[in-house]
Amino acid sequence: MRLLFIGDIVGKPGRELVTATVGRLKAERGIDFIIANGENAAAGSGITGAIASSLREAGVDAITLGDHVWDQKGFEADIKTLEYVCRPANLPAGNPGRDHLIVAKDGFRLLVFTVLGRTFMGLKAECPFLAADALLARLAGTYDGAMVEIHAEATSEKQALGWHLAGRATAVLGTHTHVATADTAVLRGHTAFQCDVGMTGPHESVLGRQIEPVLGRFLDGMPRRYEIATGDNRLSAALVEFTATGQATSVEWLQVRAG
Amino acid sequence: MRLLFIGDIVGKPGRELVTATVGRLKAERGIDFIIANGENAAAGSGITGAIASSLREAGVDAITLGDHVWDQKGFEADIKTLEYVCRPANLPAGNPGRDHLIVAKDGFRLLVFTVLGRTFMGLKAECPFLAADALLARLAGTYDGAMVEIHAEATSEKQALGWHLAGRATAVLGTHTHVATADTAVLRGHTAFQCDVGMTGPHESVLGRQIEPVLGRFLDGMPRRYEIATGDNRLSAALVEFTATGQATSVEWLQVRAG
Amino acid sequence: MRLLFIGDIVGKPGRELVTATVGRLKAERGIDFIIANGENAAAGSGITGAIASSLREAGVDAITLGDHVWDQKGFEADIKTLEYVCRPANLPAGNPGRDHLIVAKDGFRLLVFTVLGRTFMGLKAECPFLAADALLARLAGTYDGAMVEIHAEATSEKQALGWHLAGRATAVLGTHTHVATADTAVLRGHTAFQCDVGMTGPHESVLGRQIEPVLGRFLDGMPRRYEIATGDNRLSAALVEFTATGQATSVEWLQVRAG
Amino acid sequence: MRLLFIGDIVGKPGRELVTATVGRLKAERGIDFIIANGENAAAGSGITGAIASSLREAGVDAITLGDHVWDQKGFEADIKTLEYVCRPANLPAGNPGRDHLIVAKDGFRLLVFTVLGRTFMGLKAECPFLAADALLARLAGTYDGAMVEIHAEATSEKQALGWHLAGRATAVLGTHTHVATADTAVLRGHTAFQCDVGMTGPHESVLGRQIEPVLGRFLDGMPRRYEIATGDNRLSAALVEFTATGQATSVEWLQVRAG
Ligand SMILES: [Fe+2]
Ligand SMILES: [Fe+2]
Ligand SMILES: [Fe+2]
Ligand SMILES: [Fe+2]
Ligand SMILES: [Fe+2]
Ligand SMILES: [Fe+2]
Ligand SMILES: [Fe+2]
Ligand SMILES: [Fe+2]
Repeated sequence: MRLLFIGDIVGKPGRELVTATVGRLKAERGIDFIIANGENAAAGSGITGAIASSLREAGVDAITLGDHVWDQKGFEADIKTLEYVCRPANLPAGNPGRDHLIVAKDGFRLLVFTVLGRTFMGLKAECPFLAADALLARLAGTYDGAMVEIHAEATSEKQALGWHLAGRATAVLGTHTHVATADTAVLRGHTAFQCDVGMTGPHESVLGRQIEPVLGRFLDGMPRRYEIATGDNRLSAALVEFTATGQATSVEWLQVRAG
Repeated sequence: MRLLFIGDIVGKPGRELVTATVGRLKAERGIDFIIANGENAAAGSGITGAIASSLREAGVDAITLGDHVWDQKGFEADIKTLEYVCRPANLPAGNPGRDHLIVAKDGFRLLVFTVLGRTFMGLKAECPFLAADALLARLAGTYDGAMVEIHAEATSEKQALGWHLAGRATAVLGTHTHVATADTAVLRGHTAFQCDVGMTGPHESVLGRQIEPVLGRFLDGMPRRYEIATGDNRLSAALVEFTATGQATSVEWLQVRAG
Repeated sequence: MRLLFIGDIVGKPGRELVTATVGRLKAERGIDFIIANGENAAAGSGITGAIASSLREAGVDAITLGDHVWDQKGFEADIKTLEYVCRPANLPAGNPGRDHLIVAKDGFRLLVFTVLGRTFMGLKAECPFLAADALLARLAGTYDGAMVEIHAEATSEKQALGWHLAGRATAVLGTHTHVATADTAVLRGHTAFQCDVGMTGPHESVLGRQIEPVLGRFLDGMPRRYEIATGDNRLSAALVEFTATGQATSVEWLQVRAG
Repeated sequence: MRLLFIGDIVGKPGRELVTATVGRLKAERGIDFIIANGENAAAGSGITGAIASSLREAGVDAITLGDHVWDQKGFEADIKTLEYVCRPANLPAGNPGRDHLIVAKDGFRLLVFTVLGRTFMGLKAECPFLAADALLARLAGTYDGAMVEIHAEATSEKQALGWHLAGRATAVLGTHTHVATADTAVLRGHTAFQCDVGMTGPHESVLGRQIEPVLGRFLDGMPRRYEIATGDNRLSAALVEFTATGQATSVEWLQVRAG
């Protein structure tokens, strides 16, 4: 079977590219599960119920989120009704929203959840290693394979989680840096891994934002409005092939350019 | 002309692979300049005069360094005599060592220097954007092209520096995360760019270190000895082709596996 | 002579207490210079031209700022016309506003400036130690004593700057943590020092904000509106006595409660 | 009843001052419980079994620790046998050592534990708010009053924990910054509070270390040996008076100078 994991969707360009691309990709590549990180889908900051719904209609089976999960006002209420959306699993207990999703296709039950890293991250979260262990144990028997997203900054933390779950998860795939890494691998002959699958949105940019204001801020430290960029729109994703017992056999990174 | 920039050399496995590989690569790929980051060459932490010298003998023209520059005791004295080694350019003024190198081959004078990022970095440094501007201006007329290394954690800072120097530097190439990125590009038709060229050393590891102690520390926070790993030794590098006027025409990322 | 340095004024309660208190304090304690940090004067975030003007009318001779300097939209324009306001001296060169002030009373010229710390601070600044050295050297001959504010988080950085300027500045006084320290001292018989003079505003609070939303965020990490608190309003300040040659002879920390 | 909480003991000067002072203080001030933070007792970094034992013999009833808990090699084994020593309660589960102590005097059972802050702290810990709640709940009925140490950098986190436990703990007292704060208070008529009680050791220093190497490092960023300073040795502590039902009635900060 095959799952496609689409990295951080940024703003309207990112959303439009997902809508325009997902159906064709699914057919051409024989994809069973489409999962996408939508933490930057609403103008670069968070997501809304309406946007989540539109991504779902475009063919995305499950939407994950990251440290920007609560950037949009009111989403803490919306999330409760969205059955195909999960927030990071290692947020404190009081946070609303599902901490995991189970998506079933042709009798295969894919567990999907995200853990936030704790190195260089603003949002404080519980230990991602123990949180992943706990979820896998608690849900044992209810899923046939697990895709664990590590939404984190530090490569050390991402690699460590990959090795920690190697042999137990179908895939450990990273997001958050918005830059794909050239390190796809199947760890210990079982677990598809990539430090970061990259972002979906305008690449003539700094992480999807217009270059000038971000660069200006690096130069003088003064605040500016960060608009979403427009040029060089691309979808970034990892395509994982796996067996009926949830063992990854290959992982391929792909980018689809707009237009 | 062609330059090869080799990412963070980690420990003895990294050094041995450089020694075993550089001559052949140079011949096969017609490389003119070989530059390597050696900040982890001495057992993963810093570099010594003897190690720098051995890398030089192996065919490395210029050695750069990062935040681990002063990890080895006594290197602050050694560096003064090493004419092919430069420390990050934006360290405070009191730091010993060259802040840049100019390597000449066949009449082309290649300026090489490193700037440290300031986001999520332990070592405090001056503004990398202004430091790069200042060096390029101060040395104008003495070089025909510049390779600027951005040794940094955050993808935003690395991309921003790439755009900042696009059209002015021959290449802006990143190091420090030890994981190569899949974003090689020639920015504005002039400047070769890659967020990170990756590390040179054992890849069955966490950033070149043995997996178990690093993972153990993520789990319980307790200190451990971090030994250099051994498995899956690879050299990671960016190969940049450029004109006699210092304009990059292509950039290719490559990895060479040991054995 | 005597200078009073009032710590971070927070919101309307803080401003009102300054207005109500400064005249009486000045008369009762024979104060020559009144300096106040106003970085949180506008609803806790930054300052406006109108607020700066009202503090000036209340008797404040010089207003300093911190990392919240640009929180209020438009203040980057306003600051240019405010001759009694300075922004941190070690911001990048492109920042508008004065980097120091010289206030003269009875023939004594008091140099006033702020440097931002770099440890645990979000806003990137140039080295505060070298920035202070540079200003003191550049302005030599134009002032009779210097009050240097260190707006910083880490006690190590604040103490180190105190010792660095001991014997050269009339006072090195800290702000930013909003909690006064019990360490007033005259360093090397010359320089009044205190790690933090504390904040001016409601103390039944977390740093001047209402307790509940701040505590809520520590518990679940979710964003909330942080309103200014109301209870236990206090003005916090350091009172420094110094000679005609700018040598501090004493420093006293004081708090004035509202009502 | 009365408890004395002594802040971070730094090196030999700090230890000697504790030994010389504790007996007299106990008698003069009628102190029932003496608790001390010993995280810097061994040359500024961590503690050893022998040092813990010597502090105990000097009259310290309970020793707490902070982020430097594992700085001394072998202490992870030693701590298991030390019945009067506890490590921070919110370290990950795998950490050895007691997470709390209960000290009984004249029929009053005082619960003592430390939580590490998570803002600006290198060591990753579980949520200090929830960890404190959990311990207080789990041990309910076994203690008559609780002294909670918040070992943290940020004043916001320390104040928030004070308010969180106000009415439930006998005292919430801070350590880690090595600088005492001027904010002693009894919160909600029940809980003694101080953001930081300060350190015990040489005050002509930067946080107990010799001034010159620390200042040198701030200036050029290069590593140096940080020796313990010698001048102006002081013991810093909070003295809390409380009722038989564990309600604080007063808190006084005191410093005792050597010699
Ligand atoms: Fe993110
Ligand atoms: Fe993102
Ligand atoms: Fe590095
Ligand atoms: Fe490195
Ligand atoms: Fe501030
Ligand atoms: Fe402030
Ligand atoms: Fe500490
Ligand atoms: Fe300490």
